[in-house]
Amino acid sequence: MNKKAIILSSGGIDSTTTMAIAKSEGFDIYSMSFNYGQRHSVELKKGGEIAKFFKAKGHIIIDIDLRNIGGSALTDNIEVPKDRKEEDILRGIPITYVPARNTIFLSFALAWAEIIGAYDIFIGVNAVDYSGYPDCRLEYIRAYEKMAELGTKMGVEEKRRIKIHTPLISLTKKEIIRKGLELGVDFSMTHSCYDPTDDGKACGRCDSCYMRLKGFREAGVKDPLVYASN
Amino acid sequence: MNKKAIILSSGGIDSTTTMAIAKSEGFDIYSMSFNYGQRHSVELKKGGEIAKFFKAKGHIIIDIDLRNIGGSALTDNIEVPKDRKEEDILRGIPITYVPARNTIFLSFALAWAEIIGAYDIFIGVNAVDYSGYPDCRLEYIRAYEKMAELGTKMGVEEKRRIKIHTPLISLTKKEIIRKGLELGVDFSMTHSCYDPTDDGKACGRCDSCYMRLKGFREAGVKDPLVYASN
Repeated sequence: MNKKAIILSSGGIDSTTTMAIAKSEGFDIYSMSFNYGQRHSVELKKGGEIAKFFKAKGHIIIDIDLRNIGGSALTDNIEVPKDRKEEDILRGIPITYVPARNTIFLSFALAWAEIIGAYDIFIGVNAVDYSGYPDCRLEYIRAYEKMAELGTKMGVEEKRRIKIHTPLISLTKKEIIRKGLELGVDFSMTHSCYDPTDDGKACGRCDSCYMRLKGFREAGVKDPLVYASN
Repeated sequence: MNKKAIILSSGGIDSTTTMAIAKSEGFDIYSMSFNYGQRHSVELKKGGEIAKFFKAKGHIIIDIDLRNIGGSALTDNIEVPKDRKEEDILRGIPITYVPARNTIFLSFALAWAEIIGAYDIFIGVNAVDYSGYPDCRLEYIRAYEKMAELGTKMGVEEKRRIKIHTPLISLTKKEIIRKGLELGVDFSMTHSCYDPTDDGKACGRCDSCYMRLKGFREAGVKDPLVYASN
């Protein structure tokens, strides 16, 4: 029997490549997505397709209402910035930062892990492109593991180590795309845009589209997505 | 201007006394409750009354669907144990343990804290009556604080310490009740039962009712609640 791993899936390039890596390491895939009132809820549909592609043993979508809490362009009525220069995208904590988002996501993953008996959680955080997000750094992830061990039955009673895998943490977008392609990921399944059109097309102009397009360009591969601004 | 504190409120004796303590320490109260498909959703109604009693500046209820994850008598279709002996209640991790529950709750509190600019979170965990819950121990709370500092903008950019207050951690139920009464808490507002009747009466027989009744008995005070089995 394979070991079980929970993979946090947003339907984007990073989490999909992360899922491919977990699969290639021999884990059974348990995919977990979140509906948090994000603008880009098209990602949820993608999450299901992707889970199927990797023959996931489980796939759940958790509804959480971060809208009640507010405070980010991704969940609030703040405008998603468009056509920003790369140095602006990479500088400081972006407006699209959702407070404690990864902490919330990992907490649900931890609960599910305890139920199904998984000791491995994969998250596609990346410290290169998302240097402004505090919860995308390895230091944070290690502190999370420690807390998880002390706060769960499996950690305390069964003395299990809970491992949070971050295989992309030091890769550039170009390297992530190449890694994904190498593992057979079909990137036409994935979705990255912060502000898609009503029919689900990527805008091509937000920070996330910018970084995605740049990654494909640098990888020397055509992005299979159709963009609204193409 | 007073400092802001987020108080996790379940509508029970512990969290209500915790709120009274935060209030007595001069904090403005921001009350946070969770609707997680628990059997005892009467606690949500109580949460609102209690927030009002303490003149909370904010009160939000977060919907989360732990039912999808399953795995506890409080959210699943497992029967709530009744009429257990005290030594059984206190031994090991109880069936009513919800995996990673405090981790999830604290994560939402952390997100809200970051939005409203609060650096203090109060949680009524108790290591005496709930010795079986890994996430009711100080060691876990300290690890959570560390993770919270490393994973948030306020921790990383503003170098703020995030304090998780656990004023009840080493008190017995008797002492908690006495403390609450001393601070003017009206315990008829509170609710503890794991398995209330349809009209919201406490069963008087589950572990939580047992510990509550014992606490009042030992405090030498009559519990103002009406029980189904009275």
